[in-house]
Amino acid sequence: MQRILSTQLPAHVGATVRIAGWAHRRRLLKSVAFLIVRDAAGLSQVVVTDPAARAQVEALTEETVVEVTATVVANATAPAGVELTDPVVRPLGPPAVPPPFDLYRPALTASLPTQLDHAPTALRHPLRSAALRVSAASVAGFRAALDSRDFVEIHTPKVVSSSTESGANVFELDWFGRPAYLAQSPQFYKQLMVGVFEKVYEVGPAFRAEPHDTVRHLAQYTSLDVELGFIADHRDVMRVLRDVLAGMLDGVAERAAGAVAALGIELPAVPEEFPAVHFTEALKVAGAPADEPDLAPAHERALGEWARREHGSDFLFVTGYPMAKRPFYTHPDPVRPGHSNGFDLLFRGVELVTGGQRLHRHADYLAALSARGEPVEPYAGYLDAFRHGMPPHGGFAIGLERFVARLTGAANVREVTAFPRDLHRLTP
Amino acid sequence: MQRILSTQLPAHVGATVRIAGWAHRRRLLKSVAFLIVRDAAGLSQVVVTDPAARAQVEALTEETVVEVTATVVANATAPAGVELTDPVVRPLGPPAVPPPFDLYRPALTASLPTQLDHAPTALRHPLRSAALRVSAASVAGFRAALDSRDFVEIHTPKVVSSSTESGANVFELDWFGRPAYLAQSPQFYKQLMVGVFEKVYEVGPAFRAEPHDTVRHLAQYTSLDVELGFIADHRDVMRVLRDVLAGMLDGVAERAAGAVAALGIELPAVPEEFPAVHFTEALKVAGAPADEPDLAPAHERALGEWARREHGSDFLFVTGYPMAKRPFYTHPDPVRPGHSNGFDLLFRGVELVTGGQRLHRHADYLAALSARGEPVEPYAGYLDAFRHGMPPHGGFAIGLERFVARLTGAANVREVTAFPRDLHRLTP
Repeated sequence: MQRILSTQLPAHVGATVRIAGWAHRRRLLKSVAFLIVRDAAGLSQVVVTDPAARAQVEALTEETVVEVTATVVANATAPAGVELTDPVVRPLGPPAVPPPFDLYRPALTASLPTQLDHAPTALRHPLRSAALRVSAASVAGFRAALDSRDFVEIHTPKVVSSSTESGANVFELDWFGRPAYLAQSPQFYKQLMVGVFEKVYEVGPAFRAEPHDTVRHLAQYTSLDVELGFIADHRDVMRVLRDVLAGMLDGVAERAAGAVAALGIELPAVPEEFPAVHFTEALKVAGAPADEPDLAPAHERALGEWARREHGSDFLFVTGYPMAKRPFYTHPDPVRPGHSNGFDLLFRGVELVTGGQRLHRHADYLAALSARGEPVEPYAGYLDAFRHGMPPHGGFAIGLERFVARLTGAANVREVTAFPRDLHRLTP
Repeated sequence: MQRILSTQLPAHVGATVRIAGWAHRRRLLKSVAFLIVRDAAGLSQVVVTDPAARAQVEALTEETVVEVTATVVANATAPAGVELTDPVVRPLGPPAVPPPFDLYRPALTASLPTQLDHAPTALRHPLRSAALRVSAASVAGFRAALDSRDFVEIHTPKVVSSSTESGANVFELDWFGRPAYLAQSPQFYKQLMVGVFEKVYEVGPAFRAEPHDTVRHLAQYTSLDVELGFIADHRDVMRVLRDVLAGMLDGVAERAAGAVAALGIELPAVPEEFPAVHFTEALKVAGAPADEPDLAPAHERALGEWARREHGSDFLFVTGYPMAKRPFYTHPDPVRPGHSNGFDLLFRGVELVTGGQRLHRHADYLAALSARGEPVEPYAGYLDAFRHGMPPHGGFAIGLERFVARLTGAANVREVTAFPRDLHRLTP
């Protein structure tokens, strides 16, 4: 008999079926016992009255893997309107050691560190797994949006000969006796691949040896990277970013509706065009001094409220960040010296995405590095490609865990990461 | 005026259009000059007769990025039946330094090391980029096949506290002062996530400190990993693998038809069920001694010919590999001691995929490690999860670069990898 999933039970009322899953919970009442079985799709209620079957269920520990053959009976008061009666229960392995928290409670009561220490079981909690389903659906939506726009997916090296973003916060490793580094981003590679495919994206790990223990930082995170050529300026990039975010939210709505419902979250509306404010204007809106070189979190929150109030939008672009605060490959604003064609996207008052137009002329790279007093040599292999013809281009990167944390309202990115890596955590 | 792509020209005969791309080739004849412009979609032929425009084209170097505004004219002898006349050519950057090989020749004549040294430009050659398009389409097909079967995509750590497959061939790094290792595979993590989602997949980098310089090995490769629970045995895994390969080839046929045509390759037919032969039988077919513990490349070639001849199939499963040659997490064949529920899939006589059923009981892991004289401690964090209820499960891993190399007939996996990493190569 083919196994069916919990969600398929209502279509089999009156029939004998086989389900399988984990012993999620047992409720031992006087005259009847209930065994709740959890599978990938949800929960099934098994009603146990036979004394021998009851003795077996009493001996079952939570999380033991079981197979149940039983009759599907309609019962309006049961989950999904059905329950299983006259069961034959067969364990598919030895009795499980119950995890150090109750997976059947509405939320895990254990502290986050305890959950992370026991991630393989904590992630079985429906709220923890729901966040990961939102994550998977977000990435699927990201790809779908880009595939439909003829972007090509790439896979680039995660071990590099010199650090890409700056010398700090980089993990060093031994590469056959030579020093090498974990890639902090695919920044240079995605730019080079614009020379091949014009429009590219990558979903992959990025590594930052972040020495601070914060709720927003991971030492390994999943970076959703996009780069496109033949742009007029950063506004072409912003339009793609708007469409990509719309695609990600569509992906979540379509592929993770159950998870969205379980988490009780509201997906933001995506305006046809995101409101945008120039950095100098943003300082005024946020009530910050005119000579501030960057936006503090309090400024971003104030801007988020303003965008909500003035534009009815959860999203707000801030453009024209000062060049001094952007990486050396950033293209300057040709008409506002000191400002860049770089932008941030705020989502509900928090920075979600950074992007912009990049330099595309070899000479401009040399000048930019020189102006910052940085040597050319570590970037030579990368810069060389810019001598061979590169179109005006730009792109952006979305941190997947941050996106999901903000969407689901998680206070800590670790809540939406299967096996987080940070200053203190290298296992499980 | 909106830029259009080369492939859109036939729909604009008689109109003035704007195209952009790289100066792919110039042909300077006596009375006329041709400028071939390459964009992401293909090539356009620009006809230059005006003396001033000709002087400009003569000064253009190959790979300079240009924009051309011109009139589309039908010409049956031109590529795709159209050419562009009366052009206004505008460079979008400084004159390019031509790469050290001619991108306009049918194939790159430079040696592979030279191509790899200059990957950012070598990959612009239509045959090199076509292989990467096949790669992207393969991965898209992989995901589509699994998404439609309710597999959930996961992202797992690429830095781990102990090596996963064996102590050898592992890259060590400094993790905030502690020793850590690059993940050789997501093996353990995908197994743990079967406890959460039952069916999972991951596309991500895997790292092997492979000390040999071969045409089949990379120190970083893209691993397509699948794992599923509630299986009867390895044959359930083999059925999924068959469907996944069919999905990958469908993906290539649908999304990379142009690349397939450019490369002149024939996609293999995918039988409803792949033929399968037990290891002991495979030795006989290959004419190998009955006590051989593994299949040598010559045996695999013989088996490939046999599968073609006897079953009309490019694919052949070899099942029941000796336990001694499989990793410790392999499930034994319950009825043939010494043999495993592990399999290889041969494609045209070369091993393409390894997979099998895994152990799912904690006690079996302890016994397996003990029998091999391996300590439990390095695997403790991983094994602990098996105390909390894990269903019978199995899976497989496909090396993306190997798959694409075999599909495209590339002699070296480096030909189908954008920026390969190996014993000698850490740049670009």
